[in-house]
Amino acid sequence: MLKFPKPDVEQFFQTYVIRGFAVTPDEQRLIFNSNLNGEPNLWAMDLPNTYPYPLTYIDQSSSFIKPDPKGRFILAGFDNNGDENYHLYALPVQGGVPLKVVPGEAEDKFDFCHLSKDGERLYYMTSIDNPNFLNAHCRNLVTGEDKLLLKGEETTTFLSAVSPEEDRFVYAKMYANTHQLAYLHTGDEVIALSPDAEQVQLSHEFIFTDNDTVVYITNYDSEYAYVMQYSLAAREFKALCQVPGEDVGLIKYHKESGTLYIWTDKGIENKMYAFRPDGEGLQEMELPTDIVGQAVVAESGNIYILARGAVDPFNIYRFTDGAWEALTKNQVIGLSPEQLVYPDVVRYPSFDGLEIEALLFKAKEENANGYTIFWPHGGPQAAEGKFFRSMFQFMLAHGYNIFAPNFRGSTGYGAEFVKMIEGDWGEGPRLDCVAGMDWLFDQGISSRDKLFIVGGSYGGYMTLLLAGRHPEYFRAAVDIFGPSNLFTFIESVPEDWKPIMDQWLGNPERDRERLTKDSPITYLDQMVKPMLVIQGANDPRVVKAESDQIVAALQERSVEVEYIVLDDEGHGFSKRKNEIHVYRSMLEFLNKHQA
Amino acid sequence: MLKFPKPDVEQFFQTYVIRGFAVTPDEQRLIFNSNLNGEPNLWAMDLPNTYPYPLTYIDQSSSFIKPDPKGRFILAGFDNNGDENYHLYALPVQGGVPLKVVPGEAEDKFDFCHLSKDGERLYYMTSIDNPNFLNAHCRNLVTGEDKLLLKGEETTTFLSAVSPEEDRFVYAKMYANTHQLAYLHTGDEVIALSPDAEQVQLSHEFIFTDNDTVVYITNYDSEYAYVMQYSLAAREFKALCQVPGEDVGLIKYHKESGTLYIWTDKGIENKMYAFRPDGEGLQEMELPTDIVGQAVVAESGNIYILARGAVDPFNIYRFTDGAWEALTKNQVIGLSPEQLVYPDVVRYPSFDGLEIEALLFKAKEENANGYTIFWPHGGPQAAEGKFFRSMFQFMLAHGYNIFAPNFRGSTGYGAEFVKMIEGDWGEGPRLDCVAGMDWLFDQGISSRDKLFIVGGSYGGYMTLLLAGRHPEYFRAAVDIFGPSNLFTFIESVPEDWKPIMDQWLGNPERDRERLTKDSPITYLDQMVKPMLVIQGANDPRVVKAESDQIVAALQERSVEVEYIVLDDEGHGFSKRKNEIHVYRSMLEFLNKHQA
Repeated sequence: MLKFPKPDVEQFFQTYVIRGFAVTPDEQRLIFNSNLNGEPNLWAMDLPNTYPYPLTYIDQSSSFIKPDPKGRFILAGFDNNGDENYHLYALPVQGGVPLKVVPGEAEDKFDFCHLSKDGERLYYMTSIDNPNFLNAHCRNLVTGEDKLLLKGEETTTFLSAVSPEEDRFVYAKMYANTHQLAYLHTGDEVIALSPDAEQVQLSHEFIFTDNDTVVYITNYDSEYAYVMQYSLAAREFKALCQVPGEDVGLIKYHKESGTLYIWTDKGIENKMYAFRPDGEGLQEMELPTDIVGQAVVAESGNIYILARGAVDPFNIYRFTDGAWEALTKNQVIGLSPEQLVYPDVVRYPSFDGLEIEALLFKAKEENANGYTIFWPHGGPQAAEGKFFRSMFQFMLAHGYNIFAPNFRGSTGYGAEFVKMIEGDWGEGPRLDCVAGMDWLFDQGISSRDKLFIVGGSYGGYMTLLLAGRHPEYFRAAVDIFGPSNLFTFIESVPEDWKPIMDQWLGNPERDRERLTKDSPITYLDQMVKPMLVIQGANDPRVVKAESDQIVAALQERSVEVEYIVLDDEGHGFSKRKNEIHVYRSMLEFLNKHQA
Repeated sequence: MLKFPKPDVEQFFQTYVIRGFAVTPDEQRLIFNSNLNGEPNLWAMDLPNTYPYPLTYIDQSSSFIKPDPKGRFILAGFDNNGDENYHLYALPVQGGVPLKVVPGEAEDKFDFCHLSKDGERLYYMTSIDNPNFLNAHCRNLVTGEDKLLLKGEETTTFLSAVSPEEDRFVYAKMYANTHQLAYLHTGDEVIALSPDAEQVQLSHEFIFTDNDTVVYITNYDSEYAYVMQYSLAAREFKALCQVPGEDVGLIKYHKESGTLYIWTDKGIENKMYAFRPDGEGLQEMELPTDIVGQAVVAESGNIYILARGAVDPFNIYRFTDGAWEALTKNQVIGLSPEQLVYPDVVRYPSFDGLEIEALLFKAKEENANGYTIFWPHGGPQAAEGKFFRSMFQFMLAHGYNIFAPNFRGSTGYGAEFVKMIEGDWGEGPRLDCVAGMDWLFDQGISSRDKLFIVGGSYGGYMTLLLAGRHPEYFRAAVDIFGPSNLFTFIESVPEDWKPIMDQWLGNPERDRERLTKDSPITYLDQMVKPMLVIQGANDPRVVKAESDQIVAALQERSVEVEYIVLDDEGHGFSKRKNEIHVYRSMLEFLNKHQA
């Protein structure tokens, strides 16, 4: 009877993000980090009632949430407008103004590791005195006594787990995103958590299932990550659980039932299993949506996850009595999943025959404008997956198709695949992208005259590189905080990233020639297509100077370039007004540069 | 162990408002109007899950919410930044962009009355063609056909109820806030809903309990309002339910059980009853908090109320299985009710012996600064009650006591009491205020040297009047959108208020002398105390010129005056940033003017 108009532009951004959550041991309270009131804040709900109420009003993102097991406070990490220099705070249980629990200057950073069962001893990492490699401390919250537990050496070192009796801990030394070794520290002894610590491997997600046993994820001696167990009593390693062809990414342990919950990546797909080492073995469990971001298994056995899908934003789900139930209801205002676009998963062969998986979002026929956005993801050792992006759905509603390839270096395709980008940021992955564009043209989905490139972070770098080396492939490009010059990028990353830069990207001395070849700024003279550059002023990962220099150079050459700097953002957009502003500008830019 | 600091200034304003709500007939959805994301918007929850999700993002207040009984849309009224010119819109069921369902210009206003059971016929009031007296229309939402149902004549006329078969309706003619007559329109006949329509009475809240019976609230022939029933078949009036010494203010009817739910005012207290005319009679029911604002009784018999208390903000509660349950959890961030101040109810004799009831909020000993804020409420035919005010609790935390008298003209004390202010805005009520101040001094609670006056709307008027006539009683005053000149005020009120101005306030010709005597601007030369004036630019009730003229006049006389104009507000503050700004400024102003 009443005829409502088509969804408005802004409508796609009228959704909320949940970045992390915690559940109190009695499961009566769920605390989460959301921009429900427009800015990032902590919220709580008193279960079974799911009506949320805010705990903070500082409008800052938090890196973790840890309620005191005795219910006297809530620990959380807050940074300053996206600078990622998280500090450690305690909040009154009912919320209010956070109190800094470990002193530090603005440029210092902290990371939470563990809080003792009595809530009195806080184990944390800090950049103070050791900005490259980090130190681990234990602070007594009652007495204020603070002691150095572990001094990072040689490379970035993370305190990863503390045993129930607090006499043992696991730490990890990170050499690259694909190379992380772990050590168990007990008494005066340090035991490598690997049958062969010389082998390149990635070990993470350490759980003390009891004071003598550590369970963790590793890809030691394997293409795909699996669950390993180390028993200190027997000094024995045991491959506890492997899922053929799938990368285990997250594990949680339920002590009472002895169940291990496992989440895996199989390319773009996410899967979940329950594993009882003593019994039924591996049982697949259905997921309520595509991708799991965080999981908590309560003492009761209830499972809480933060998950999202291609057409639904982050929500918190609880698994009780054999079924998932959504506790939150974040959705896009007035847009049901059916009104959004669910992607196809496609595969194409790259220049060297390597198979590349990609997401293809096709604009609905009534909206389609014939243009396609090519989206190289960030990371680069990450992957584009089936997770809701307002920007994607917004562009789709405006008629643009979106194509997002998981080029070599993406995660979820085994250890070899992800390593292929190390020391090769600009050759193989770029040619995978070019092959992806050719595939789009061959399939008749797009053409050189109908293609745009848009990317952020590493995807922004790839956008710039494609703009410099393959300008004939597309009409215009949008770079969102992408590094433009690998030499200055290496120098300006956060201090604790520096130890891995050598293996991850390269060495400015040793690899001068390659880094020159792979720096977008080398190809300035060929960057002739219109460009929109977007940068957060506080970005600690890709600093503003990276965007400044490319914009200045292009302006000097009279290339059409627009530049948006967001004063109150870091590496990503935490504020809706900025998000809407940026993507509105992007749409206008793309629309303007259609044929 | 961790010592948290005292609550921050801003913390008191970190709370949300719920202005109204609706429940779908199947009770699976609750829709409400809240500024949960910082701006007023509509939200929904899918019961039993109480996690709210937004339906609009237009950031405007709504005057009503009415879901289509068939679930195809939601009707709501939105104004423009507080101008109170509400227009009628439909929203898609899942939310989005509201669609205007009745055309109209910015200066027109509309009010919802009734939606037919099939959701097709909308009965509404409009100012179009009849700005003073208003017209009632019926619009067919399927065909767009719109017909005039009733033309307001003689005074402001409101369509108040439509019978189930839509062949009868009740309308009310308002002569004053205390004088409203109702008529039942059936066929060609118009029946006065009063045994004696000549008597001054106030009738409202009309319910067709069936097509032949109207139940409503009236104070016909009674000092206190009670429930009357009119049976059309028998042409008979029947006083259905009276509560001695209490004013019935709200009624709802549950058809299946034949239960009438009744909410009354007994001075400052609010009470609730269930009434079964055929059986148990009047049963008092416990309330979950102090004051009920809105109620819905569902077909199932479940009762939903929007209620608030002296130390808790608006929340929606449901009565099921003999108990109240809060569905929402609006609270002040990090402040439990115990940390706030609950008021005492005190009584004092006025100049003529009339007993005046007042709320006395005493600052906690650890906060007390010895100063008191005297708060004359707005309305004036309203009352200060036990409802949470951020401003009060904020000022209390900063050490100020607050004293809020229900001077003559306040509601809840019977018909005589409320009428005492009509045609006497500036004498009796003012002397009640002066007696209240003297009482404060006599009790040793305050002194002339320790008193401030703060008031809004009529309370702002009273503040200005006290400032002009009793400057020796206090240190400084804050006027929030108060009329300064009764002559210009009478001319500038909304058109549909004009018919009642004569009885309510006075006639500029007939009452020239009194209106001059009662206009604050008459006493400019005596207004020597520092003044802060606050005004919303879009205020339709007390227009900005009222504040402009007093500020200009005081400035001319070199009186210390500060002036804050809020460009995006009307009569009240709908945006938190404005609220915080205003009350911060007020605190600074008061602190500055302590001895």
